[in-house]
Amino acid sequence: MRPQIVLFGDSITEQSFRSGGWGASLADTYSRKADVFNRGYGGYNTRWALFLLHHIFPLDGRKAPIAATVFFGANDAALLGRTSERQHVPVDEYKENLRKIVKHLKESSPAILVVLITPPPVDEPGRKAYAMSVYGEKAMEHPERTNDMAGVYAQHCVDLAKELGVRSINLWSKMQETDGWQQKYLSDGLHLTPEGNAVVFEEVVKVFSEAWLSPAEMPLDFPHHSQIEGENPEKAFQHLCL
Amino acid sequence: MRPQIVLFGDSITEQSFRSGGWGASLADTYSRKADVFNRGYGGYNTRWALFLLHHIFPLDGRKAPIAATVFFGANDAALLGRTSERQHVPVDEYKENLRKIVKHLKESSPAILVVLITPPPVDEPGRKAYAMSVYGEKAMEHPERTNDMAGVYAQHCVDLAKELGVRSINLWSKMQETDGWQQKYLSDGLHLTPEGNAVVFEEVVKVFSEAWLSPAEMPLDFPHHSQIEGENPEKAFQHLCL
Repeated sequence: MRPQIVLFGDSITEQSFRSGGWGASLADTYSRKADVFNRGYGGYNTRWALFLLHHIFPLDGRKAPIAATVFFGANDAALLGRTSERQHVPVDEYKENLRKIVKHLKESSPAILVVLITPPPVDEPGRKAYAMSVYGEKAMEHPERTNDMAGVYAQHCVDLAKELGVRSINLWSKMQETDGWQQKYLSDGLHLTPEGNAVVFEEVVKVFSEAWLSPAEMPLDFPHHSQIEGENPEKAFQHLCL
Repeated sequence: MRPQIVLFGDSITEQSFRSGGWGASLADTYSRKADVFNRGYGGYNTRWALFLLHHIFPLDGRKAPIAATVFFGANDAALLGRTSERQHVPVDEYKENLRKIVKHLKESSPAILVVLITPPPVDEPGRKAYAMSVYGEKAMEHPERTNDMAGVYAQHCVDLAKELGVRSINLWSKMQETDGWQQKYLSDGLHLTPEGNAVVFEEVVKVFSEAWLSPAEMPLDFPHHSQIEGENPEKAFQHLCL
């Protein structure tokens, strides 16, 4: 019954309902107004995400979401010849995969609000420290992701959004505007701290609100309790045609 | 596509996706396994909740939830003749309203797992301090809720669950087993702190797991990324019949 907002992405989306997570904060902000669905898949790149598209966003006329965030790139940008190369997707293919995703979303619902989110920046010392803590001496000598490479993917993501006329959030740039972003926003050089989650949350709400999804202006699904008369509660529910 | 879990209740459910909230923690725990829907209505009692039943749990054969928590009573137990009396529902009616809710849920889906949750305990000094902070000198002299009365409603809730053979969580008792529950679990004498949310979360997961909804045993919706071969990703998705 309620409008649906779908968060489609990788682990940064999948983990977004942890304490302080940006997905949970969105769900709370749109409480009683829209349902927020977590469709985050840890480790996935855009190439693998394409296999899920028709399942998550069917074209069969079932109720389509009013909005979707598309938040990939952190895995696509893993470097060739390093420990995470299985997840690597060349940047031109990344861009074309995002194009296919946007095209599919628009087919599933012409009025859908699509927001592309770039990968966050990468803190290479943070990644290295994380790898050492997990793998000890076996940790890779060379980083499996670099901040420069994440920036290349982020730029392609933003360029595509402009080309297609959809909205985007350049998280890679935004986070680096703040001194100490490496520890403030990233827990292991790649995933988000609660403060990092807050940045994503604020940016998404800003973009949604600038479009046509201002949470303050959306109606509640059912009457606020203060509208219900103690002696005559039926009155507040009459319009529901019970 | 995914199984659905619905959280039906009052403000303690509505606020359950705030940071550290029990609803968000459930959504995270069932990530990629079930969708958790927040159907919390601040200020609502069971009498008003009945108006929403057919809308939230339609009987038209559309996909019904596999589980639902029913978490009312904090408002029903507001005292007559005090500032929140508009929300008061006599305890016998509270019990009968819960019975109607359970009956409806079973009609919507005979196999549904229903968990009744009692109201939490009430810390009267905490309520008083909260009222003073909001209304100053105008704050009520007498509490609008008492812990003893919340306990009466909790007992009726637990009795009904036993009578109907559905599961229940006696939150009123459970929280009072811990010294200092008043400040540890309650933020304003009635609503939950993050620690209080953690109690609800742990109890719900325990009851769900003891039934047939152990998150560890439920399958992921799509392949884990480690199952996807870099050279031949199609293989991992073949069973989806794309």
